[in-house]
Amino acid sequence: MTGRFITLEGGEGTGKSTQIKRLTAALEARGIKVLATREPGGSPGAEEIRKLMVEGEPGRWNAITETLLAYAARADHVARTIGPALAAGQWVISDRFSDSTFAYQGVGRGLDRETIRRIDSAVLDDFSPDLTLVLDLDAPTGLARALARSGAETRFEKFGPDFHEKLRQAFLDIARRFPDRCRVIDASGREDQVAEAILAAVCRRFDL
Amino acid sequence: MTGRFITLEGGEGTGKSTQIKRLTAALEARGIKVLATREPGGSPGAEEIRKLMVEGEPGRWNAITETLLAYAARADHVARTIGPALAAGQWVISDRFSDSTFAYQGVGRGLDRETIRRIDSAVLDDFSPDLTLVLDLDAPTGLARALARSGAETRFEKFGPDFHEKLRQAFLDIARRFPDRCRVIDASGREDQVAEAILAAVCRRFDL
Repeated sequence: MTGRFITLEGGEGTGKSTQIKRLTAALEARGIKVLATREPGGSPGAEEIRKLMVEGEPGRWNAITETLLAYAARADHVARTIGPALAAGQWVISDRFSDSTFAYQGVGRGLDRETIRRIDSAVLDDFSPDLTLVLDLDAPTGLARALARSGAETRFEKFGPDFHEKLRQAFLDIARRFPDRCRVIDASGREDQVAEAILAAVCRRFDL
Repeated sequence: MTGRFITLEGGEGTGKSTQIKRLTAALEARGIKVLATREPGGSPGAEEIRKLMVEGEPGRWNAITETLLAYAARADHVARTIGPALAAGQWVISDRFSDSTFAYQGVGRGLDRETIRRIDSAVLDDFSPDLTLVLDLDAPTGLARALARSGAETRFEKFGPDFHEKLRQAFLDIARRFPDRCRVIDASGREDQVAEAILAAVCRRFDL
C-alpha cells in the first residue's frame, strides 16, 4: 500500500518547518512511518539546484528560468525521494511543492499561470499531494520572522513587502481553487495551537 | 532590423566549436556583426547551470531533470544573450540549441519527444533558429576526438558508444524532419573543407 503525500505551503516565516517537525512526531507516535522533506531540495541533486535559486540577488534569474529550475529540482525530488518513499508505504511531508511555484514565480513574479501549468503537466503528469496545508499569516509578521533567521538563503526575502503580500493572497487563492485538496491553517497563534489545528486537519482527511 | 540565428548541432567531437570560430571570422570579414555563443551556457547564469549538467557521473540526473536544467539554461541564454543580440541586429551563432535536447535527452536517454516538445513550447513559444547546420561524423571518430580533450566536462562522454551512435542518428533524423531549417554537413573531411561547406550553406540560405 502506498503512503500519503502531505505538503505545507505558505509565505516566508509562516512556521512550516517547525510545524513539519511536530506533525512528523505526532504521526510517528501513531505508528506511521514518515519522511519529512523540503523544496526546493529534498534529494542530493535538488539541493544543489536549490543553492542556485535561493542565494544571490533578486535579479539573478527571471521568472521562467526560476520556474524551470524549480521543476528540475522537483523532478529529481519526486523520482529519487518522494516516489520511492510513497511506494514503500511511508507518508511524505514536504515543506513546499508545486503550489509554491504558482505562488512565487506565477503570482509573485508575474509568470502566467498557464505556462507553469503546461510545465507542471509535462513533468508531473497528474501527480499532486493528497493534502495541502496552507499556513496563513500576515506578510509583515512572516517576513520579520524570516529576516530574524541567519544564513545565505535570503534571495526571496529581498523581493520586498509587496511581493510577500502578493504571495499570501496567491496561497489563499490556491486554497479556494482546490478546496478538496487544501486546508487553510491560521498560523498567527501559538505554536502548539497551530500544531493542534494541523493535526486535526490531517486526522479528518485520513480518518485517523 | 533583427539579426539571424544560426545553430551548429552534432555529437561530441564533430568540430562545432572550431567551425564556429571560422564561420564567425568569415561573416565578420563580410561586415556582419556576429555573437558566437554556446549551450548549455552562453550567459552567466546558464554557465552555472551548465556545470551541473556536464560534470559528474552519468547517473547524476535522470533524463527529465536534465531536460529541465537544459531549458532553464536556455531560457536565461535566450533572454539575456541571444534575444538582445538579435534585437540589436547582430547575427548569433550558437554551439547547440533545442535540437541537442531532443537528441541527447530524448533519443539518447529515452525521454519521449512529446514531453520535450511540450516543455520547449511552454518556454520558447515558437522561437527557433533560422538555420541549423548538423555536423555529421561517425560516432567512434567523434568520441575519440572528444576524449582527447582534457577537462572536467566529461559526463556525456561517459555514456558509452551505443549512446553516441544513437545521437548521430537522432541529429540526422532531426535534419530529415526539418528540411527547411537544417543542412547536414559532412564533418569527416579536413577542417578547411568543412568550413567551406558551412560557409556555402550559410551564403545560400541568406543570399550573401
